[in-house]
Amino acid sequence: MMRIDVLSLFPEMFEGVFQSSILKKASEKQAASYNVINFREFAEGKHKTVDDYPYGGGAGMVLKPQPIFDAVKAIQQERKEGQPPRIILMCPQGERYTQQKAEELAKEEHLILICGHYEGYDERIRQELVTDEISIGDYVLTGGELGAMVVVDSVVRLLPGVLGNEASPVLDSFSSGLLEHPHYTRPAEFCGLKVPEVLTSGNHQLIEEWREKESLRRTLERRPDLLENFPLSSKQKQWLEQLKGERKS
Amino acid sequence: MMRIDVLSLFPEMFEGVFQSSILKKASEKQAASYNVINFREFAEGKHKTVDDYPYGGGAGMVLKPQPIFDAVKAIQQERKEGQPPRIILMCPQGERYTQQKAEELAKEEHLILICGHYEGYDERIRQELVTDEISIGDYVLTGGELGAMVVVDSVVRLLPGVLGNEASPVLDSFSSGLLEHPHYTRPAEFCGLKVPEVLTSGNHQLIEEWREKESLRRTLERRPDLLENFPLSSKQKQWLEQLKGERKS
Repeated sequence: MMRIDVLSLFPEMFEGVFQSSILKKASEKQAASYNVINFREFAEGKHKTVDDYPYGGGAGMVLKPQPIFDAVKAIQQERKEGQPPRIILMCPQGERYTQQKAEELAKEEHLILICGHYEGYDERIRQELVTDEISIGDYVLTGGELGAMVVVDSVVRLLPGVLGNEASPVLDSFSSGLLEHPHYTRPAEFCGLKVPEVLTSGNHQLIEEWREKESLRRTLERRPDLLENFPLSSKQKQWLEQLKGERKS
Repeated sequence: MMRIDVLSLFPEMFEGVFQSSILKKASEKQAASYNVINFREFAEGKHKTVDDYPYGGGAGMVLKPQPIFDAVKAIQQERKEGQPPRIILMCPQGERYTQQKAEELAKEEHLILICGHYEGYDERIRQELVTDEISIGDYVLTGGELGAMVVVDSVVRLLPGVLGNEASPVLDSFSSGLLEHPHYTRPAEFCGLKVPEVLTSGNHQLIEEWREKESLRRTLERRPDLLENFPLSSKQKQWLEQLKGERKS
């Protein structure tokens, strides 16, 4: 069972997400366990202060190293066996999160995710404590909590036994390397828009070809960068040239 | 006040996030209102079915167009005044979300976010209903809910009057265009690691220079792609050459 500890000043943010859907199922199936810790509990002093002014002046506050170091130490002392944890700092300066990273983290036994909120982190947290720094994208969020939920969801759904038949691979664009082709379900006509004929033809070879081609088309139109590293078959290369020709004309 | 409607089959996932921190404050200050709608309520038929098998066969299910179209129609009928809504589909095939997009959406009066879960979307939802398709990053999530939370958080914090003094600009890496410089707070020594002397020198010009240089260094080391479009000053260009020289030696 993968153990996941999250350090956050807003533990209540995680309840709805960790108690629903796949994450709930994973916990019921004992594939993963979640533990959200308010690291303010580890702050020294009467006022349990977790942040302080930055050296050198300037706006904003900085998270002190002590509460976070002590919270991580307490987790590690409680769990002495097994692999050492991956200690992940959620921050805009981190490496950009990818499906490849999710697959890497899914092999671990223990993840500790650290979420700041508003504040910067004291640099010594990066220097001495964490093994990974992750950013989920190039946008500004109020804190690391949503990023931690994204990491947990993307990792836990990869754990053995978690995804049942209810979770189809249709959304797994980044696993296949290309964007998904269009999907259609009943009714055959909706708002005057019909399902493409090929999909109701019953000819499986034609359907597969259509899907593969539309997947290429969508990737070419929306995310041509994904094609750069994709190992195209010779048939796909031929289609791609054809699609590029169509776009020019 | 910005109105935000979220369509999801798992409305309980949003409670912890929409009722905490900045999103809670924005609602209390009447800067934004959130409304999470289970679009299953709009499904026709006794069994309130929201999905169906894909035309052409294959694994997985596809979200039917009717419940989502009808849910959006009901929202629009309830709110007849003001700008038409931006109708956003959360999906891996969407444009990659950025801070620029967050700033664009923050100018709107009404956002409707549509979250699928496991399933694909019937293509006619894309063709006829939505104005934007957004992906928060190149990784696979169980559903669109976490993406919707990311969009809402990043947009709402930009609304006038929402961020108070408690929210510093220190995390705003992507607003400035470069990654943040390191931060330090007390104690001056922790785990044997000292705060850089310059930060305790009291020389504000030197501190500013150090910060600007470290910000450049971190961006060069971790996200050189951000430098490509950044309008460097001549001083920054000089530093950058110097930093590149240091890395080579």
